[in-house]
Amino acid sequence: MFAAPAIQNLLDELERLPGIGPKSAQRIAYWILNTDHETALRLSEAIVEVKETVHFCPRCFNYAQGDECEVCASTKRDTSVLCVVEEPRDIPPIERTGVFFGRYHVLGGALSPMEGIGPDQLNIAALMRRLASEDVQEVVLATNPNVEGETTATYLARLIKPLGITVTRLASGLPVGGDLEYADEVTLGRALEQRRTL
Amino acid sequence: MFAAPAIQNLLDELERLPGIGPKSAQRIAYWILNTDHETALRLSEAIVEVKETVHFCPRCFNYAQGDECEVCASTKRDTSVLCVVEEPRDIPPIERTGVFFGRYHVLGGALSPMEGIGPDQLNIAALMRRLASEDVQEVVLATNPNVEGETTATYLARLIKPLGITVTRLASGLPVGGDLEYADEVTLGRALEQRRTL
Repeated sequence: MFAAPAIQNLLDELERLPGIGPKSAQRIAYWILNTDHETALRLSEAIVEVKETVHFCPRCFNYAQGDECEVCASTKRDTSVLCVVEEPRDIPPIERTGVFFGRYHVLGGALSPMEGIGPDQLNIAALMRRLASEDVQEVVLATNPNVEGETTATYLARLIKPLGITVTRLASGLPVGGDLEYADEVTLGRALEQRRTL
Repeated sequence: MFAAPAIQNLLDELERLPGIGPKSAQRIAYWILNTDHETALRLSEAIVEVKETVHFCPRCFNYAQGDECEVCASTKRDTSVLCVVEEPRDIPPIERTGVFFGRYHVLGGALSPMEGIGPDQLNIAALMRRLASEDVQEVVLATNPNVEGETTATYLARLIKPLGITVTRLASGLPVGGDLEYADEVTLGRALEQRRTL
């Protein structure tokens, strides 16, 4: 303990944050000590506000502050297309692309027998209820392109296809701006298999 | 705005922190959203506590929670040796060495004509008052080994030496465990100039 107890306590709490080691925690703690009272309190209050006002959207399980999340509450979205993602954090990157105008459904994870996550631990029953009550024409499976995400997509495709709904999956291939030389063989293999006619 | 307002607000506040870019802010914000209420509130309260209870030690200008900082309040320190540092953040690394048992004096910066920081902007008058009233035998100048730090050390040495007090400076040289091959020429030059007889 080479710092005042309150500083040591702040360091301990900061070090819990993801990607924050002792050096970063120290830099942030001294920044908080040096900054004006108001700026520091704004950060403290932003944390409290997020914990007190943000909950899961009852429709799609995205983070929401009002009754429904901003996407579900919008009247401008195409309700016939539903994009299924693993986590709420997957939604902002898709929104930023500016090419998707449908709604979302957040699973809350991916199937993983290793970690004991089966269909009942995910928001799959709620998804099926939505497909039964909403007029959805297409479900885009946007789970991660890894083992758990692919397993989940395959599982959902098998459940949803019999309902007569089009099921699609995000394309796999070379990242735009990427270098063919540095692509891993699995990605390059997918890019070849899923090659398009020009 | 692709996130609920409270989340966007938290992201904005997190991005103000040093070393935290948009990606890190997002990772931390989602961690806060996912963690239990109590853990998040502990962080929020640690920030408030530090701002409300930590002030400058009236003797040495280190951060303090009680009347004086922990070093000044300790009865186990050698009051005849005073280590002068630029900032409170310089004290923990010196304490961690385990080889310094004296007290500290924090200048609150270094002389920098470029930034308009002269002797009056630093805690130099307070240092001179301490040297007049406390029985200090040696002042260790531990300002940073850069232009501003060296200038400050030279300035202080000129002020303090006439008082008959021993003035020392941290040694410059190769970092322990470092590689001679990769040392910059200035550091290597210092290490040569300040070579010791074995």
